[in-house]
Amino acid sequence: MSVRMNPDRQLRIGMIGHKFMGKAHSIAYRNLTFYFPSSLQPVMQVICGRNEEEVRNAADRYGWNEFETDWRKVIERDDIDVIDIVTPNDSHAEIAIAAAKAGKHILCEKPLALNLLQATEMYNAVRENGIVAMVCQNYRFVPAVRFAKQMIDSGKLGKVLQIRSTYLQDWGMESNPLNVWRFQKEKTGTGAHGDIASHLIDLARYLVGEFAEVSGHLETFVKERYVDDASMFLARFRNGAIGTFEASRFSAGNKNANRFEINGEKGSIRWDLEQMNLLDVYFKEDDQSASGFRTIHCTGAHHPYGENYWPAGLSVGYEQTFINLIKTFIDGISTGKSPEPTFWDGLVNQSVLDAVVESSEKRSWVKTPSACGVSTE
Amino acid sequence: MSVRMNPDRQLRIGMIGHKFMGKAHSIAYRNLTFYFPSSLQPVMQVICGRNEEEVRNAADRYGWNEFETDWRKVIERDDIDVIDIVTPNDSHAEIAIAAAKAGKHILCEKPLALNLLQATEMYNAVRENGIVAMVCQNYRFVPAVRFAKQMIDSGKLGKVLQIRSTYLQDWGMESNPLNVWRFQKEKTGTGAHGDIASHLIDLARYLVGEFAEVSGHLETFVKERYVDDASMFLARFRNGAIGTFEASRFSAGNKNANRFEINGEKGSIRWDLEQMNLLDVYFKEDDQSASGFRTIHCTGAHHPYGENYWPAGLSVGYEQTFINLIKTFIDGISTGKSPEPTFWDGLVNQSVLDAVVESSEKRSWVKTPSACGVSTE
Amino acid sequence: MSVRMNPDRQLRIGMIGHKFMGKAHSIAYRNLTFYFPSSLQPVMQVICGRNEEEVRNAADRYGWNEFETDWRKVIERDDIDVIDIVTPNDSHAEIAIAAAKAGKHILCEKPLALNLLQATEMYNAVRENGIVAMVCQNYRFVPAVRFAKQMIDSGKLGKVLQIRSTYLQDWGMESNPLNVWRFQKEKTGTGAHGDIASHLIDLARYLVGEFAEVSGHLETFVKERYVDDASMFLARFRNGAIGTFEASRFSAGNKNANRFEINGEKGSIRWDLEQMNLLDVYFKEDDQSASGFRTIHCTGAHHPYGENYWPAGLSVGYEQTFINLIKTFIDGISTGKSPEPTFWDGLVNQSVLDAVVESSEKRSWVKTPSACGVSTE
Amino acid sequence: MSVRMNPDRQLRIGMIGHKFMGKAHSIAYRNLTFYFPSSLQPVMQVICGRNEEEVRNAADRYGWNEFETDWRKVIERDDIDVIDIVTPNDSHAEIAIAAAKAGKHILCEKPLALNLLQATEMYNAVRENGIVAMVCQNYRFVPAVRFAKQMIDSGKLGKVLQIRSTYLQDWGMESNPLNVWRFQKEKTGTGAHGDIASHLIDLARYLVGEFAEVSGHLETFVKERYVDDASMFLARFRNGAIGTFEASRFSAGNKNANRFEINGEKGSIRWDLEQMNLLDVYFKEDDQSASGFRTIHCTGAHHPYGENYWPAGLSVGYEQTFINLIKTFIDGISTGKSPEPTFWDGLVNQSVLDAVVESSEKRSWVKTPSACGVSTE
Repeated sequence: MSVRMNPDRQLRIGMIGHKFMGKAHSIAYRNLTFYFPSSLQPVMQVICGRNEEEVRNAADRYGWNEFETDWRKVIERDDIDVIDIVTPNDSHAEIAIAAAKAGKHILCEKPLALNLLQATEMYNAVRENGIVAMVCQNYRFVPAVRFAKQMIDSGKLGKVLQIRSTYLQDWGMESNPLNVWRFQKEKTGTGAHGDIASHLIDLARYLVGEFAEVSGHLETFVKERYVDDASMFLARFRNGAIGTFEASRFSAGNKNANRFEINGEKGSIRWDLEQMNLLDVYFKEDDQSASGFRTIHCTGAHHPYGENYWPAGLSVGYEQTFINLIKTFIDGISTGKSPEPTFWDGLVNQSVLDAVVESSEKRSWVKTPSACGVSTE
Repeated sequence: MSVRMNPDRQLRIGMIGHKFMGKAHSIAYRNLTFYFPSSLQPVMQVICGRNEEEVRNAADRYGWNEFETDWRKVIERDDIDVIDIVTPNDSHAEIAIAAAKAGKHILCEKPLALNLLQATEMYNAVRENGIVAMVCQNYRFVPAVRFAKQMIDSGKLGKVLQIRSTYLQDWGMESNPLNVWRFQKEKTGTGAHGDIASHLIDLARYLVGEFAEVSGHLETFVKERYVDDASMFLARFRNGAIGTFEASRFSAGNKNANRFEINGEKGSIRWDLEQMNLLDVYFKEDDQSASGFRTIHCTGAHHPYGENYWPAGLSVGYEQTFINLIKTFIDGISTGKSPEPTFWDGLVNQSVLDAVVESSEKRSWVKTPSACGVSTE
Repeated sequence: MSVRMNPDRQLRIGMIGHKFMGKAHSIAYRNLTFYFPSSLQPVMQVICGRNEEEVRNAADRYGWNEFETDWRKVIERDDIDVIDIVTPNDSHAEIAIAAAKAGKHILCEKPLALNLLQATEMYNAVRENGIVAMVCQNYRFVPAVRFAKQMIDSGKLGKVLQIRSTYLQDWGMESNPLNVWRFQKEKTGTGAHGDIASHLIDLARYLVGEFAEVSGHLETFVKERYVDDASMFLARFRNGAIGTFEASRFSAGNKNANRFEINGEKGSIRWDLEQMNLLDVYFKEDDQSASGFRTIHCTGAHHPYGENYWPAGLSVGYEQTFINLIKTFIDGISTGKSPEPTFWDGLVNQSVLDAVVESSEKRSWVKTPSACGVSTE
Repeated sequence: MSVRMNPDRQLRIGMIGHKFMGKAHSIAYRNLTFYFPSSLQPVMQVICGRNEEEVRNAADRYGWNEFETDWRKVIERDDIDVIDIVTPNDSHAEIAIAAAKAGKHILCEKPLALNLLQATEMYNAVRENGIVAMVCQNYRFVPAVRFAKQMIDSGKLGKVLQIRSTYLQDWGMESNPLNVWRFQKEKTGTGAHGDIASHLIDLARYLVGEFAEVSGHLETFVKERYVDDASMFLARFRNGAIGTFEASRFSAGNKNANRFEINGEKGSIRWDLEQMNLLDVYFKEDDQSASGFRTIHCTGAHHPYGENYWPAGLSVGYEQTFINLIKTFIDGISTGKSPEPTFWDGLVNQSVLDAVVESSEKRSWVKTPSACGVSTE
């Protein structure tokens, strides 16, 4: 007895790019309805890359029906519903704007663009063409982070007062990674700043609120490099909270130490991507002598996505962040509404990134948004 | 341009059962070549369950081509190469023996059987029919555990002296899970003992060596239950090591705390499934003042399976244990040799389980193997 | 303006022995009223050791008024109120019995004796002479452990079901510590067993209840040694709880890993001496999604002894365990009642130690008490 | 046989103040030669406070020979060698300058003064009168911190690149602590900034080097308060390192979370006062697959002060930081050289504190030193 696919519950995906993020997005499309059986079924129709042999292999390995070497041809196809952009940062704008004009829904890797001007054009293209678009800030979709958001929204932590947040890596210390595109200024814009501080900014906006002003400093330890190795900044938020932020590729021993601690009037939370299933939570209202940070394994049936994966105590991994995100993206397409983080979120993120760069140059605090007349309200 | 499947690199799977382990095995078949592109391609041909509606849904959700309600029909099919048994423990023997006689390769969930007699018959059926068979002890395939094995084998920890090992859960404390098959003596044999102490025994055999004798005690806290809630035992190994073991479903706050610490003459290692990517390692030879347990995030390129998944510091999850195991199983089929843990391993595991039960009843140490004339050498 | 000492609030101490434990007890006497100003003031009158130069130096360094080389002379002095025994295990009985007959109050290091017979004689001497006597099981007096006891007694953890407990060290692995008295069978009785398993037994009796029966194994890894390097045993308690215990001097990387986890019907607690100020606590009744082990820094004003030391978050150390114990001992003298752990506790502890040795020899479970007609009820 | 005190090895101490820090310094004087028998013996001669009943009780409890209510009388006494200042911040300058003029050696609590002007006067008074003076920055004297310093100095971490450092408390969140002097602007100068950020600055100068410029922000969450509840700042160091700093009394769940992580070219270290005996260390040169942060229990014989306290794995506590500091102070007196942190260090610390305040007001980076013509070189 054969199992039929329901043709009207399908969305055809064209993915531009096929490397690290191409792999991550592919596993998510592949397994979406496995974990979320009520979801629309994405069809992995065509994957695109400039090197034919590489993209053929990627298509074969990741399970795409077809491959292509010219991204414009993918966008021109009538049978493609969604364009997923996983290319280096310098091509996001051109591809996204073309896709929007062609009426395709868009998922775009972070950071949205090289600068605020590009981001604004992308945002406008999405708005004008009425398509659904989302930025792939996957860490919002970690179950423990989602649960942190629920707790903040429920008021259990009270008004948020402070955030301290770091994203520490050490691969920048290896000799001569100059040929990696993430170190090429024209492809990447900034270094650690745009690559990983953009994650910090997204999580801070998600969990704390909108940035009001920043004071920052970008540092290049290896002077031959053209992009920053580390970025640090202070922030004030519009709701009165304050924060410290730091992104570094020179923190030996830290591989992907994306961490935050948030202090509210009624309690605190802590998270670390390297132990992504855990969330530490402190409630001031706990009995005084028995109060302490609770370490919660956010894999129970009551946690976000808990019913979709495994019994409590059994870990989910990095790929689940993409599955959960794409679930939200696909749901957005089915309802016609761009889910958060939208291109607007990507644009605001870019404005904070740019404000930090400007602050680092001016050696003073800079209000966000700092340019382009963009208002974050 | 379509991507072709290579027909001669396929193995057709028939899976008997479709619940928790059915889901786990399905995700592994589904993604095997995604992560291990050089592997043979398993074809998810048919899934089998007694309830037609449920199994139809499982087939649809998990991506099986067909479903079936009578496991004997699956075994009789000529086009099926592999039988994967994910049913409750009481049916493992009958299905496996039938599958072996039909010349199918077999993957069977743990524990292998209800008792040593069954396990012996299953082992004999496999041997007599020359098929490839493996027991699904997935925790051997956690990258951190695999890395622990590499370190022990390399001699970096020296001769192993001690192991202490627990598998602690707390779901047994919930009211009235009597309708769960894992609490029904006729389906499960023992309770926590066979279900989770069998994991401890497998890891101890993998990392330390063969058991020589045990002294154990099984406890039922809820007297209305027919199976044990907790199992604890001491062990002496043939190589002179000693160990303590404990499995419990009544350890509040522990969800899947499968943990071990192993002490060797030159160092120690510690692991906990709830933080499955981490391995703590201590080397005696380290500079005296700078010595301490190192917490290793076993996701680097140099770690087992590190190249197959994500960059260092990005976690893999529970499903990866099954993907890695099935990679080994499929490789075994392609070479015609049953990979470890084999049915022999399952049989020896059962002999240790049985020896603990016997010890608990006799109130004295019991040598393993304790029955059936099985020699573990 | 001079500060007067109140002469009628003094107790004169004679300490027999002056090495590791002599130092620990000395710092406690010295600082008792500093931290507990309402306590009786102990006077460090005389310290005794066989080597005159060493004991003179100890007196000078630790602040004893006088020194002595013959312990019998100390006991004979009329002006001495308390005999504190910090000698190797083989002399505890003789000194304590003589001190009791001389009407001195006694603090005696653990384990109380070399065997149950000696312990019984000591217990009888104390009872017959109506003196106050206490065994120096200092880990009962760690604030976090005291707090654990409060929580168990308050019923917050419900009925205790399980304990797992280890005391792991690695100094036994160093070459040739044979000249240490703790490795000389005639001085020490057993090795790791009496030295550190006695701590585990004391904490288990304190926190869980009386032992009913044990099954144990003692192991000597270095065969040239005459005492055990490791001890492990299972236990059933009279109240139905079960437990696993392990003491080892061969666990590389563990320095003083005196740890326990206790599971009750309503929650669990965990503690580790190496991080002695922390207690992990889990309550089943916590909101399901926000439940996890809380890490409590037991230094707050509401914790045991919290008011006597420093503000919350500032650690106390090893010496505080002795100060707190001696506070209790001195209070006991002032009220005329031996505080727990009494010599009865020391005797019962010895009976469990002996039962484990007997079980290890017989290879079967042994009921406690195992000899001498001692009843632990 | 009486033990004699050696009169020529004594220093007579006069302590001004008797509350939290008075207690901490007293326990240190009391036990100095107990742990460091070769040290000069401080004599606890006189303690001074304005409230006669309170200071009498303190003298009695802490073991001072005499008490006094007028600090000038203490300074005038010929028999006093050392003045120890443990009063609120606003009186440090007056007392210290008077003591220096009277030729007394000085130990002064941190922060040295209310502002850089006062600190400069104090520094000059010390220099002109040729006395030995030290600021009581006790966290330099935690064994784990001292060990961190040794590792940095030995080059094992390579050139230091980054530090991130926080001192988080939550007692500021309690209702109405306005009557505490630490919240009274005239007594304290700043709030969390001077009180606890001064510790961060001291450790950063000790472990990383001199500050070059800072960008900071002080925040008062409870607007009715006159001092800051939180302070955060970025820093660049003269040696090229960068850092982030944050002090807060509004971080729920953090009691005394004085923490740092330092990244060097060859490795990293992490420390947390709440687990003060532990130091996490990462070496890049470790075998790649076995690399991870080592958790070192800095209580071994090879660690700083390890021989003076207890065997490895047994914790030291908060009071040891003062004992170790006063050991260094007394050694300094015996050699006639002010040990670090000197009043110069206190002055430079103050200049960084002030630069952060100025930066917070100016909303731009401020070079340190920012005033008074003080050069930190």
